[in-house]
Amino acid sequence: MKAEIIAVGSELLTPDRIDTNSLFLTAELNKLGIEVARKSVVGDHRGDIRRIFAEGLERADVVISTGGLGPTEDDLTREVVADLLGRKLEKNQEVLRGIQERFVRFGRKMAEINVRQAMVPAGATILENPRGTAPGLWLEADGRIVILLPGPPQEMQPMFARQVAERLAKRTDGMRLQTRELRVAGMPESDVDQRIAPIYTKYDSVQTTILASPGEIEVHLRAWSDDVQDAGRMLDELAGKIIIELGDNIFTDKHESLEQVVADVLKSNQATISTAESCTGGLLAERLTRIPGSSIYFLGGVVSYSNELKTAWAAVPKAMIDAHGAVSAEVAIALADGIRRRVGSTLGVGITGVAGPDGGTPEKPVGLVHIAVADGHSPIERRLQYLGDRERVRWQASQTALDMVRRYFLHGTGKRHGAKNA
Amino acid sequence: MKAEIIAVGSELLTPDRIDTNSLFLTAELNKLGIEVARKSVVGDHRGDIRRIFAEGLERADVVISTGGLGPTEDDLTREVVADLLGRKLEKNQEVLRGIQERFVRFGRKMAEINVRQAMVPAGATILENPRGTAPGLWLEADGRIVILLPGPPQEMQPMFARQVAERLAKRTDGMRLQTRELRVAGMPESDVDQRIAPIYTKYDSVQTTILASPGEIEVHLRAWSDDVQDAGRMLDELAGKIIIELGDNIFTDKHESLEQVVADVLKSNQATISTAESCTGGLLAERLTRIPGSSIYFLGGVVSYSNELKTAWAAVPKAMIDAHGAVSAEVAIALADGIRRRVGSTLGVGITGVAGPDGGTPEKPVGLVHIAVADGHSPIERRLQYLGDRERVRWQASQTALDMVRRYFLHGTGKRHGAKNA
Repeated sequence: MKAEIIAVGSELLTPDRIDTNSLFLTAELNKLGIEVARKSVVGDHRGDIRRIFAEGLERADVVISTGGLGPTEDDLTREVVADLLGRKLEKNQEVLRGIQERFVRFGRKMAEINVRQAMVPAGATILENPRGTAPGLWLEADGRIVILLPGPPQEMQPMFARQVAERLAKRTDGMRLQTRELRVAGMPESDVDQRIAPIYTKYDSVQTTILASPGEIEVHLRAWSDDVQDAGRMLDELAGKIIIELGDNIFTDKHESLEQVVADVLKSNQATISTAESCTGGLLAERLTRIPGSSIYFLGGVVSYSNELKTAWAAVPKAMIDAHGAVSAEVAIALADGIRRRVGSTLGVGITGVAGPDGGTPEKPVGLVHIAVADGHSPIERRLQYLGDRERVRWQASQTALDMVRRYFLHGTGKRHGAKNA
Repeated sequence: MKAEIIAVGSELLTPDRIDTNSLFLTAELNKLGIEVARKSVVGDHRGDIRRIFAEGLERADVVISTGGLGPTEDDLTREVVADLLGRKLEKNQEVLRGIQERFVRFGRKMAEINVRQAMVPAGATILENPRGTAPGLWLEADGRIVILLPGPPQEMQPMFARQVAERLAKRTDGMRLQTRELRVAGMPESDVDQRIAPIYTKYDSVQTTILASPGEIEVHLRAWSDDVQDAGRMLDELAGKIIIELGDNIFTDKHESLEQVVADVLKSNQATISTAESCTGGLLAERLTRIPGSSIYFLGGVVSYSNELKTAWAAVPKAMIDAHGAVSAEVAIALADGIRRRVGSTLGVGITGVAGPDGGTPEKPVGLVHIAVADGHSPIERRLQYLGDRERVRWQASQTALDMVRRYFLHGTGKRHGAKNA
């Protein structure tokens, strides 16, 4: 089965707004075994909306739209689709009552204009909207399904989940999409591809996508099949081979962030952490504390931009900074070890570098970052030379720091994923 | 003039990828006075690509596509469009030489497959690609313009700027888009709209859009006109009235972030700042240090998650925490004043709150945050009750903190924007 997704709204044709509803809908449709063949955005113009629905109905089994169901003159989806399918719009008393009650509940008077939202094309199934006034609509014509959903994600998503998914599932042909996702840190994209291409290319029926973002590579495996168990086994087999090949470089086979994995590792080891950051300016602390309940493992951190504060807060000897410079392996280790001792945490992380765009020298260019993890015994230190702008350098440094903490708990145990590094 | 934008690529029809090239192209086309009437995404399928170009050419003056110009079997845009327009593909020796030289420069051998990228439809203008192998193509047929651009933004954007914009400008009908942008902090969207709607609705020829994100409202003004000066004057007049109405709540009339404005205000006042954060976990420090050259005004910050560290790093008396709780106005002020004194900065900012999802109580629910700014004389303190999840609470708290610093320098001077708060 094939679907087309249409986003209606002139604001989505400006440089400031993008349709993201289609990402949610694509994920949900794929789960039901429905492939998305086209996505479109049109403005609030009668002719444009009519044409796009007419074209969609010529090609697709399911046409799903978001937006244009509001009460204003600009909201045309309902009207135009009814007209295109040759259905009369009728005032639905039950929907009208629902809208009126909603206004009463919020202590406001319903404007006459909202009656438009109670107009329903003949033969349509009403999809209730507990989060807003505009109901969704399900229509069928000539074996095609047309689903009109509201634009706001907080209304659209629960409506799809509660009232569309199950109805659609009954109409699909049994094909289902199975997916697996592996996330890799500490390797460039080309290396990942070079090492796993000989593996995944042997699996013709699996679509493998490698998505690269700074400091992180995602490997997505997708297989369409009417035999869910068989496809699942095949994906597990392929994922298993990739995990053996990439070993410790894979930090998760779930849909989760590196900071979440680090949080779990710290908790399962009953370890605590503290941070002393310079060029990342608090980004590492911020990422470690994004996770709910982070106070269990994160005790505290400092952003010691000035040399004086490196000494005051993390006990970095002034003489060391004078001798090696603030951006040096020595200072990174001293930051890590100093903050660990001050805070009394299991681990301390120190970061110092040149985020740019200014401050670089021939010896210490923009993008140079030293990162250390100290445990009171033998500190680990890495010297990195990142590419990219200030934001990218800072992000990659925080990513490497998190990955170093993750690997700290792996080494010698190799228990995660039970795989050795090839 | 009307344009349609087509993004070609099956990966853009998965739940993981979104076409963002169209935002850049929309902004550029609008500047040239060209309106975008439709945006579409299709997969790498011959029939789908052909249909979408054929439809686009029926409606639009300009059809611009991105993607599908690579060397592989999946890259079909060039071939399909040539066929649709009835043009033969010819091997272009100059393009081929360029591709070969590029491979030589990178010390690699050109694969035979890359010859595909030197195939040019008869009559096409070649748009050189200094950043990659695939040239862009400009075709004309029956008064319509078709522009094929590569998918990677780092290739597409300079190609458009250098080789498309000027060519297109010569063909437009003189209509141009003028824009103004105002950013507001510290007011809910509904209040902004209620106060400025009576103003902007009087300007029929200006399209006013209000974009809300957590802690920030953007007011976008857009006017199409063939008289650039006249439209500019009208926008300035409307913007001026809105600035008078919203006064200090507007933090910029430029396309810049709140942290950039705060950075400028700190620098122009030769002031320095330090931070002591609890629930925001370093986000405020991170935002203050995103700005290049931030070491001039940002001296340092602490993330004192534990009560012990609030005392150790910001000298918050233990007895105060015991008496009022860590989340209290008293502790926020003590954090702000303590860090200011420790660091020796002009201002200190203290944040303490309940980011959630856990840790809330009936008296101190999730979303409660106390924020203080101390200057050594009379600290300012605010108690906020934010809605939303952990990420949203933290973001809003950092936004309020930045806005409090901005307003600190405004009060009594009112020099920014020269406007009084209505």
